[in-house]
Amino acid sequence: MDIELADAVQRLRFEQPDVRALVITSGKDRVFCSGANIYMLGSSTHAFKVNFCKYTNETRLAIEDASQHSGLKSLAAVNGACAGGGYELALACDEILLVDDASSAVSLPEVSLLGVLPGTGGLTRVVDKRRVRRDLADVFSSLGEGVKGKRAVQWGLVDETVPLSRFAARVPEKARALADGSPARPGPGVALEPLDGRHHDLGVEHRYVTLEVVPAERVATLTVRGPDEGEPTAPAAMRERGSGLWALRAFRELDDVLLDMRFNRPDIGVVVLRTRGDLGRVLASDRALRANQDDWFASEVRHHVKRVLKRLDLTARTFLAVIDAESAFAGSLFELALAADRSYMLAADDGPRIALSPLNRDGLPMSNGLTRLQTRFLGRPEVVDGLPWDEPLDAEAALEAGLVTFAPDEIDWEDEVRLAVEERASLSPDALTGMEANLRFAGPETMETKIFGRLSAWQNWIFQRPNAVGERGALTLYGRPERPKFNWTRT
Amino acid sequence: MDIELADAVQRLRFEQPDVRALVITSGKDRVFCSGANIYMLGSSTHAFKVNFCKYTNETRLAIEDASQHSGLKSLAAVNGACAGGGYELALACDEILLVDDASSAVSLPEVSLLGVLPGTGGLTRVVDKRRVRRDLADVFSSLGEGVKGKRAVQWGLVDETVPLSRFAARVPEKARALADGSPARPGPGVALEPLDGRHHDLGVEHRYVTLEVVPAERVATLTVRGPDEGEPTAPAAMRERGSGLWALRAFRELDDVLLDMRFNRPDIGVVVLRTRGDLGRVLASDRALRANQDDWFASEVRHHVKRVLKRLDLTARTFLAVIDAESAFAGSLFELALAADRSYMLAADDGPRIALSPLNRDGLPMSNGLTRLQTRFLGRPEVVDGLPWDEPLDAEAALEAGLVTFAPDEIDWEDEVRLAVEERASLSPDALTGMEANLRFAGPETMETKIFGRLSAWQNWIFQRPNAVGERGALTLYGRPERPKFNWTRT
Repeated sequence: MDIELADAVQRLRFEQPDVRALVITSGKDRVFCSGANIYMLGSSTHAFKVNFCKYTNETRLAIEDASQHSGLKSLAAVNGACAGGGYELALACDEILLVDDASSAVSLPEVSLLGVLPGTGGLTRVVDKRRVRRDLADVFSSLGEGVKGKRAVQWGLVDETVPLSRFAARVPEKARALADGSPARPGPGVALEPLDGRHHDLGVEHRYVTLEVVPAERVATLTVRGPDEGEPTAPAAMRERGSGLWALRAFRELDDVLLDMRFNRPDIGVVVLRTRGDLGRVLASDRALRANQDDWFASEVRHHVKRVLKRLDLTARTFLAVIDAESAFAGSLFELALAADRSYMLAADDGPRIALSPLNRDGLPMSNGLTRLQTRFLGRPEVVDGLPWDEPLDAEAALEAGLVTFAPDEIDWEDEVRLAVEERASLSPDALTGMEANLRFAGPETMETKIFGRLSAWQNWIFQRPNAVGERGALTLYGRPERPKFNWTRT
Repeated sequence: MDIELADAVQRLRFEQPDVRALVITSGKDRVFCSGANIYMLGSSTHAFKVNFCKYTNETRLAIEDASQHSGLKSLAAVNGACAGGGYELALACDEILLVDDASSAVSLPEVSLLGVLPGTGGLTRVVDKRRVRRDLADVFSSLGEGVKGKRAVQWGLVDETVPLSRFAARVPEKARALADGSPARPGPGVALEPLDGRHHDLGVEHRYVTLEVVPAERVATLTVRGPDEGEPTAPAAMRERGSGLWALRAFRELDDVLLDMRFNRPDIGVVVLRTRGDLGRVLASDRALRANQDDWFASEVRHHVKRVLKRLDLTARTFLAVIDAESAFAGSLFELALAADRSYMLAADDGPRIALSPLNRDGLPMSNGLTRLQTRFLGRPEVVDGLPWDEPLDAEAALEAGLVTFAPDEIDWEDEVRLAVEERASLSPDALTGMEANLRFAGPETMETKIFGRLSAWQNWIFQRPNAVGERGALTLYGRPERPKFNWTRT
């Protein structure tokens, strides 16, 4: 079974709720995490292999989210080299166990071997999550060979070392201890059925989510539809609906479309966000998730919705929410408008309404730890409290409440939206990436926003400097006998 | 009188403590802040002009630090265009007053006119400090012509608009109100005498601070000497010693050397930090600053020491503290070792001692709002509390307490320090800049660390992309009739 690690963690959370710990360990070549395997330990000890080729920062956050919100703990069991991205993956785990021998070490060798920066996720986790002292982190991050054995434990880079002879026995012991420390979550699980959407040159068609691309304009329209009918609201019935439950399926489809766009459609600069459907049904679905928050399945669905919206926040494209006549921007779907860089709502007598749900209040936090409404009205909790929580709002009321950006009337509507899209699509994509990333996360910073706020910029900058990729740059010359030639100017 | 703005603010704090508000307003050409003037309003209405050519993010922080810690409030009085860096300067002020006419507007026009990013300081202050809603901030930051009049007030971009006819009368009214809201601080002030150090190719020589450069190795040694004799400890005597007071003079000299190095010696990659002098005298000076914290002059001296140490944290060079036989790393001077990326302390029977003072405990916070000890032992306040606050420590004790990185004995000392310096100087300067900036600020992020954590990276990246500076880039073509040609890939 070959799947990507974030997918594997997601599947575990839904399909095997009894699994309380997972072990990520080295592959046959003893290099941690390139072609590594995952073994999973549940109430009974069963294990299967997962092959993953790409572990992004979001993948690492998926492991941490599973630990924090699902009680699915993880152990990095390192036997051999654990370098760079491999150590970043280990840092995402709850604990790190390292073999104490001549060759097993953890390292971030990028600075000394490649002349570039270790992942900001790695550096940030070393000092912020593992709280390694910054001077020791400095020494560690400039040592190509890394740190091993007792010193790795003393500096806080790993939690424990064992001789190779005890490794095989110690791994399941530690995994069992992690699992035992986490509240039991009895099954049965809920299978995640394949989405079987249709992906083609001009878009994606899913049951609830559609992407329509106009390549020449570098614009896409992303439409999310609400439930077609009333959704189950009792825990057992929701579980029975399983991955067909609207909230789960619609947001899985949205996630698929966001990833498709990020990886396969790099030229799309502007995404118009639309919704379709019935406000009341979306609100009822949200209320069921909130009412059953102690049920593991309803909780997992909400956390899934939360993660997909966080991915949208972190997607480097302009999002413009267009709240037009047939829309259904209510509750969790209104979060799309709050996540968007701007929103346009049609002002008309029989025009659209928006509505808030309990999930807008506290169910779907952003990476900065605040809700989108708290971030929108930063430092003004009285404004958030005073929002019209219980009534649908027309454009005038929504504008007055500060919940939408613009509310053109029918005469101006088409021109204003068209011009906004055209103008945005004409601006420098680099400048927009920087601007949007700066504006989207007002308020406190967390490890997550630190990582993403710095990630692309630092790395893009350092990786494209001549000192890295020039003719005599360190990356260019890596593995060759010549020494790199640096421009020594400090910036 | 032509001086730089940060200098002007600093002079005001020391030399004219009775001045409680300053007005920064447009120059003759009505362009805010390029060749702008500053008028200062004190208990009597006196004013003088300041010409400044460079206003860095640190300058803007100097204005904010003066407001927060000195009660020196500032008003941006905008009559005409206030664009880009000009608006960033206005954002640093406590209030912004804008003329309501056809041509006066505030703007961050970089994205639309230049294809690059507005200063992250500007974007961050818009959403974090002024709490402009992020969707409105998005609209504002993509409008080349900016926002004026009532809309600027409604969106929170400025505090008030007035017709041109009332501007001249309204400015002093508002300045007076700001001044009246700030506790009076009666003079007389303390004149900041010129430092008259000697700057030459191979370094800088001041009374207490020396920089010695070895250009071929790209290494400099920065030495700070403690007081030559006992310093005054009573407020009146300290004020009488004035800018000759060791704590003030030594850190002014250190600031001068840091700026000299940053602007004039870009190739220096590694700075060896040394101290010389008597531990007890440094501790006595620190204790006097703490004991007299309610005296305005002692308070200003401490805040100055704080700002210089923050500048060191934000300086993109490697700092290695070398605690050798004749050193005096006590209290405020020990902060140099805590600010350094690593420290080496000689372990010997008659070897050096280090010592902590009350200023290490809470007097000299970093940009993240924590002390350097809190950052060093992040999330472990019991470790900070349990440090040996009252006794000098030898190398073994300092290593045990986690206060130094390495403590080689006399046999290894020279080799180990030499190798550390040589090795560091051989690494990619870009990679080190990124790594050090990531590791230096563990813990919470503040507006300051957000700004600096993103500043150089985002801007360096976006400004050197072909979309900005390529043959058909937006910066290259600015002011010409051709339209830029972008690579549309979103990163």
